[in-house]
Amino acid sequence: MRFPVLVEVRLRPGIADPQGATIQRALPALGFAGVAEVRVGKAIRFTVEATDAAAARGQVDELCQRLLANPVIEDTAVTIG
Amino acid sequence: MRFPVLVEVRLRPGIADPQGATIQRALPALGFAGVAEVRVGKAIRFTVEATDAAAARGQVDELCQRLLANPVIEDTAVTIG
Repeated sequence: MRFPVLVEVRLRPGIADPQGATIQRALPALGFAGVAEVRVGKAIRFTVEATDAAAARGQVDELCQRLLANPVIEDTAVTIG
Repeated sequence: MRFPVLVEVRLRPGIADPQGATIQRALPALGFAGVAEVRVGKAIRFTVEATDAAAARGQVDELCQRLLANPVIEDTAVTIG
């Protein structure tokens, strides 16, 4: 069975996010006053072949650790299905 | 009131995604055979000040069009709350 997967890769709290800071600095000039705490991460979508959702999650968790994220500075959140 | 927002910025279908293609090419060497259709987008999180959820969504939709995405090649999906 093929499962659609979404992995969100976020910088851990406390890790500097220059891309988010740049977006936030640009906002007042565009008329957006009430936006704060901007953090930019990655949204990685793919499909994975597995016998059931638990097996899919196991594969995806390993994939996150080995390829998609740097666990020193990044967290991942996995959504399957 | 302050609303937490997640904006997912994705490349439109048909737009080439070299980052996703690179991840996909790396997978067989790492032992992940069943992964396909890898697409890499952005996950942008922030908080927005608004009177209610509808007003927050209006602000975020405008922000997506004017700053966060390039509507020619990118789609956005907004989650509020």
